[in-house]
Order: sequence, then C-alpha cells, then structure tokens
Amino acid sequence: MEKGQLLYEGKAKRLYTTNEAGVLLVSYKDSATAFNGEKKETITGKGELNNAITSTLFQELHRVGISTHFIRKISSTEQLVREVSIIPLEVVVRKTVAGSLAKRLGLEEGMILNEPIVEFYYKDDSLGDPLVTTEHIRLLQLATPEELDVLKTDALTIFQHMHDYFHSHHVRLVDFKLEFGRTSTGDILLADEISPDTCRLWDETTNEKLDKDVFRRGLGNLTDAYQTIADRIGGTIA
Amino acid sequence: MEKGQLLYEGKAKRLYTTNEAGVLLVSYKDSATAFNGEKKETITGKGELNNAITSTLFQELHRVGISTHFIRKISSTEQLVREVSIIPLEVVVRKTVAGSLAKRLGLEEGMILNEPIVEFYYKDDSLGDPLVTTEHIRLLQLATPEELDVLKTDALTIFQHMHDYFHSHHVRLVDFKLEFGRTSTGDILLADEISPDTCRLWDETTNEKLDKDVFRRGLGNLTDAYQTIADRIGGTIA
Ligand SMILES: Nc1ncnc2c1ncn2[C@@H]1O[C@H](COP(=O)(O)OP(=O)(O)O)[C@@H](O)[C@H]1O
Ligand SMILES: Nc1ncnc2c1ncn2[C@@H]1O[C@H](COP(=O)(O)OP(=O)(O)O)[C@@H](O)[C@H]1O
Ligand SMILES: [Mg+2]
Ligand SMILES: [Mg+2]
Repeated sequence: MEKGQLLYEGKAKRLYTTNEAGVLLVSYKDSATAFNGEKKETITGKGELNNAITSTLFQELHRVGISTHFIRKISSTEQLVREVSIIPLEVVVRKTVAGSLAKRLGLEEGMILNEPIVEFYYKDDSLGDPLVTTEHIRLLQLATPEELDVLKTDALTIFQHMHDYFHSHHVRLVDFKLEFGRTSTGDILLADEISPDTCRLWDETTNEKLDKDVFRRGLGNLTDAYQTIADRIGGTIA
Repeated sequence: MEKGQLLYEGKAKRLYTTNEAGVLLVSYKDSATAFNGEKKETITGKGELNNAITSTLFQELHRVGISTHFIRKISSTEQLVREVSIIPLEVVVRKTVAGSLAKRLGLEEGMILNEPIVEFYYKDDSLGDPLVTTEHIRLLQLATPEELDVLKTDALTIFQHMHDYFHSHHVRLVDFKLEFGRTSTGDILLADEISPDTCRLWDETTNEKLDKDVFRRGLGNLTDAYQTIADRIGGTIA
C-alpha cells in the first residue's frame, strides 16, 4: 500500500490517500490539544500509543461483530481505514457524570447514571462544537431522523461493548465521543478513533484519570497514563 | 380579593398569596434584567406595560380555547392567576433565527425557519439556564416523557396562535419562552407571562426590535418599544 497525498490534517491525525480507491491512511500525530485548540502541546509517543490503542479497540469491536472503518495497523503510528463521508456530529455516550455534563446540569462528577445517555454535538470548531438537539440536527440537515436512530443505537451498543471490555481490564469507561461516516453505499460506519483522547477512562479502584483530562487539567504525564491503558488492554506497539 | 404574604420575588414579578386558596396575585415590577442578572435597571412603566400586554395575550388565548393560569387583571400592575407548580423548563419556540440559536448554530439572524422549532432550557439561574435535551430532562426527572410531549404540542399551538395574532397587528413573533405548571389535579397549564420580556417581536415592515433586546443590546428606550406593542394589540392600561 502506497501513501499518497495529504487529504486533511486535523488536530490529532493526518489523512492520506492511498493507491487503493476508498482506502485512506491515517497517521496519528504527537500533538495534544484541548479547549477547542486553546491549549496545545507536542507529546512524543502519543501518536504511537493512540494508534495502538485505537487499533486494538477496533479489532475488539470487529471480534464482536461490529464493523468499523478500521482495516489494519501498518506501522507504529499509521493505520489503514475505509474512507467515509464523516457526519459532522460528535456522538457522546456517558455512563458516569463528568466534564461538560457535570457543569451543564450541576451534577457531581463521578455520579453513575442508571442508563447511559447519548448527546450530539455539532462538529464545528468555529462554533466550539455546541450541544445540539434532534431539532437542531433536523434544521441543519446534518442527519436524517432514520440516521439519527442508527447513530444512537450503534453508539449505545458500542459503548456497552467497550464498557465491558475496559471493565475486564480494570478500567472504567466513563464516557466517549464517536464519529460516524456514510460509505459510498449509504451505510453508516463507525470511523475516527476510540482512544484516551476521545474517552474518559478511570482506574476502577483509584479513579485515577487515564485519559486526556490528564492534559486538560494538568494532572501529570500524559504518555504515562496512555501507556497504562495500552498495557492493560495489551495493545502491542508495532 | 385580598393580597396576602409575599411568596416569591423573581426578576420581573412578585407573587403573593390571596385569601382564596389556589389563587395568587402577580405584581409586575419595574425592573429589567439580562445576561442572567448581570445587567439590571429600574424602568418606570415597564410593570404596567407587561401586565397589560400579558393580560391581553392570555385573554386572546382563552378566546381561542387555550386555558392558562390567568384569571383577571385587577390593577395597572397586578393580575390574579391560578397557582401551579412550575415545571423548571423554559420552553422556547422559534420561527425566525435570533439570539442564542444564531450563535449556537452559526445561522444568520432573521432567517425564517420552514418549521418552528422547540427547545428546552433548564430553568436554573445558578447554571445559566442551559439548553437541555430530552435525555437530560429524563435524567434530571424534570418532566415525564408524556409531559414533554404535552409541553411541546401546547407550545407549538400557542406559538401558532400568538404568531397569527401578532401578524394581524403588523408584528412578527420571532420566538418566545413559555413556562408551564402542574395544577393540583396534575393537568399542565400555561403559566408565567407572554410579554416583550419573553418574546422577540419585530415590526413586520422595518424589523425594528420591540422587545427586551432593546434593553439587552442598548438599542433605545425600552418603554417606547413596549408601548408600541401595547398600542398595536390595544392593551388597555387599567
Ligand atoms: N474513515 C474516515 N474517512 C474520512 N475522514 C475520516 C475518517 N475517520 C476520521 N476522519 C476524519 O479525519 C479528520 C482528522 O482527525 P482529527 O485529527 O481527530 O481531526 P479533528 O481536529 O477534526 O478532531 C477528522 O475530521 C475526522 O472526522
Ligand atoms: N401560576 C403560577 N404559579 C406559581 N408560580 C408561578 C406562576 N406563574 C409564574 N410563576 C413563577 O413566578 C416566578 C416569578 O416570576 P419572574 O419574576 O419572571 O421570575 P424569574 O426571575 O424566575 O424569571 C417565576 O419563578 C415563575 O416561574
Ligand atoms: Mg478528532
Ligand atoms: Mg421570569
């Protein structure tokens, strides 16, 4: 597989074309950003760790029958994925109160919800990725009502699997953010990444934060936290 | 009807008990607040105008068969209402893009929506009245799913009536905020007020703002704007 031209450079990854139509190469970067890009740092080793962790998690989803854009990991920082047309919604699932949910509703961080909840945020950096309701989504025509149902159902299924998987490695999946895309045939596929950049992961015993909140809140060494996750789930660094 | 003790003092009104069980006296204040209380002013005459306008609008709703908490206007600044247990949700209906919707979704103020949209905000000053989704409402147990359906349907019906009513007076109803309450028998009733404090009202020809945005944005004399609304709808100042 040959790496082609740079298609898009995001905050955490670069997307390249390849010599195979419909296949993209994702290269994970060593950069961390937070607060809509206000806080920014280069963190050596982060790209490798996220590539390893995401690859392991997508493989785990494939194992339980959930298809994703992931094809295979091809180097320490790179993976091949199916190209999709990203739906500009961040689909957030939460089982424990943290972050913006605690702030918005005045709830205590750490409170466990009876049922997981799903939120949609409009993926638009210039607007600060605002929370949107299903009526806003309809108004902006970001997804059809049928697609929204699929996003919600799939996100909850994926959360349940990932929650149980992390639990078996003594990690609590507090919440995560997913991105989905449309394939050329109109199917909806999980895309982007599942990593400590996009999940809240707490040690089950100590509640130690093992995710991007370490960076957001300046709680210590980020790669140490991500390495802990990689070690626990046995993600091999190729 | 005798005015009893002060039950609650809000930003725009005072609520008093009366000698009749289940009946409250609402006294409209001469104060204007905005930005969650950050901007605050005494504006002589505002209480009278809002009491007159709200009374006229609630009477208009009764005329078309929609029941509200309104009983009758008893003085220039006072009215009697049925006591309800307020549901802590601000139910916002919009037909034209303005204010926080323009900001949230990056849409141009003044854009007319194909269909009105309904939003819910959690009525909590300390949290800044945040936007909430139906999942947040369920989580906080602010209203049952059945009640939410009623709130939405009723709010849209009321909006349609008020929109047509204002239109007949050459005023565009851009959006409004409603509050509903539960009666002792569990019925849901429109409560609070419908006034230039809680509506966006634009002159249909000039788009001149005739509502609280005059105060929020320092666009001129507030009572002049409110007086224009009162004059157009023929609200009598008792
Ligand atoms: N399979 C895919 N096909 C096309 N685009 C994708 C795919 N997976 C992820 N993307 C997009 O790649 C971009 C780069 O990722 P990232 O650096 O995380 O960007 P961002 O700064 O937008 O978060 C994102 O816009 C993401 O939506
Ligand atoms: N019929 C009613 N029964 C009980 N409370 C009511 C009724 N109508 C309005 N209220 C409440 O009266 C309070 C006073 O109104 P206002 O001054 O506008 O308060 P706020 O500062 O909360 O906006 C509000 O909390 C409102 O919800
Ligand atoms: Mg990203
Ligand atoms: Mg009020």
